[in-house]
Amino acid sequence: MSKQNFNRQQGYIIAIGGGENKNKKPDILRKFTELCTQGNAHIAIIPTASELEDTGAQYQQIFHRLGAKRTDVLNIKRRIDCESPSILKMINSVDGVFITGGDQSRLADILGGTSLVEAMKQENLHGLHIAGTSAGAAFISQTMIASGKSGNTPRLGMVEITKGSGLSSKLIIDQHFRQRHRLGRLITAVAQNPEKIGIGIDEDTAIFIDHKNKFEVAGGGWVTIVDPAALELCDIKSNFSKQKLSVEGLKLHMLTSGDQFDIETRQVMLC
Amino acid sequence: MSKQNFNRQQGYIIAIGGGENKNKKPDILRKFTELCTQGNAHIAIIPTASELEDTGAQYQQIFHRLGAKRTDVLNIKRRIDCESPSILKMINSVDGVFITGGDQSRLADILGGTSLVEAMKQENLHGLHIAGTSAGAAFISQTMIASGKSGNTPRLGMVEITKGSGLSSKLIIDQHFRQRHRLGRLITAVAQNPEKIGIGIDEDTAIFIDHKNKFEVAGGGWVTIVDPAALELCDIKSNFSKQKLSVEGLKLHMLTSGDQFDIETRQVMLC
Repeated sequence: MSKQNFNRQQGYIIAIGGGENKNKKPDILRKFTELCTQGNAHIAIIPTASELEDTGAQYQQIFHRLGAKRTDVLNIKRRIDCESPSILKMINSVDGVFITGGDQSRLADILGGTSLVEAMKQENLHGLHIAGTSAGAAFISQTMIASGKSGNTPRLGMVEITKGSGLSSKLIIDQHFRQRHRLGRLITAVAQNPEKIGIGIDEDTAIFIDHKNKFEVAGGGWVTIVDPAALELCDIKSNFSKQKLSVEGLKLHMLTSGDQFDIETRQVMLC
Repeated sequence: MSKQNFNRQQGYIIAIGGGENKNKKPDILRKFTELCTQGNAHIAIIPTASELEDTGAQYQQIFHRLGAKRTDVLNIKRRIDCESPSILKMINSVDGVFITGGDQSRLADILGGTSLVEAMKQENLHGLHIAGTSAGAAFISQTMIASGKSGNTPRLGMVEITKGSGLSSKLIIDQHFRQRHRLGRLITAVAQNPEKIGIGIDEDTAIFIDHKNKFEVAGGGWVTIVDPAALELCDIKSNFSKQKLSVEGLKLHMLTSGDQFDIETRQVMLC
């Protein structure tokens, strides 16, 4: 039975920066599982980004250990799989969807624009919680970073943008952020899409976006917010080869566990 | 004869992020030398930060190649050397002073608060150009980064602050910035000194601060400006061990060659 019948409030969207603790201190995965246990504790796992055979099964074990009652791995390898009635029916009945890490281009290529993504969006409005880690977090964006170079300063051409799921339409989400020195590519991405807000999530760190489009930070690292509302930039430098980008007037926040950010008003609430 | 008699305008203060090109494309060192050749092309080199014997001699060769008429290496190894009448007299007569890289704590310990630094400040007001690279650039600050840990997110205790020369009183200058991932320590430094402006200078990159306290960027990298004018922060996190710092409302600029920044008005002028 569709959760729409219960008229529940919108589910959480959760973006995890990759490398989340899975054993000793699995705070982020526990928090996601606990949200799902407010329903029937049934979680579907989408391991499509990963090319490893056991990625889905590993997360099944973890979620069961953390209290999930039922888990299913959705075997999605081609776009046609995303139109499968049985898979769409499952999305209608689960309490949470978890999108694993791997290669985010695979998510864009295989899931992008399919009935599966549309069903996830619809069910999220009625209580389905959707989490993505690493590649799965990137895919939550509408304007999505497909790949890019590391380094903390912005260069034209250092980031490749594609279309994500649009589960969160106003954010560009990057992951492994502190660990892989990705400030430069996030700044380049928002410089090219200044209507978006750049969100860089460290490993073992997550944002839990609620139904009011406000998020709270969880986990052990930082969430870097690059707000280009007042951005000025100059990209007509004579440095042809390196295409160095000058940027002026970015607003920068670095948040840790418990801090909040309102995506609508762009206001920070430090805890 | 003291340059004060000529009533010249204030000389440039030049901070170089270390690793400046010395051979094929020595643009920054050439620009400094050219400023000095507007006088008598006489440059004094302070190699005190370096523990290598030939650091001074190497810069002598470079400056001669670039057009300096006379160079002197000031042999300053103890605080008492900074009170030497012959050295103070030389500061009175040279057109430029160049402070090399090495260990910036040595600069703070040996030069800090001496008659030599006082003489340099006075002569700068009347036309003496003063450049510092790497450790020498850090020493230009009044509130100076003595040492710190790398990483792009701020933690309490990740940076040790000491007193620099105060040749530029409003900036906290860090160097090797992009290369050594020092955004975290610069943010921590300005969070603890929010009346200052944080300046992170990449290798082979420099700021030329003019008599109006405006600087222009030169060289091949970026200058990252962290302006904490609107900073809010929360440092009473319960993460005792790591002392993670949340920061809100930093203004961030990343400038490249030709871009300008007015230290007084905190305004950027992109080129």
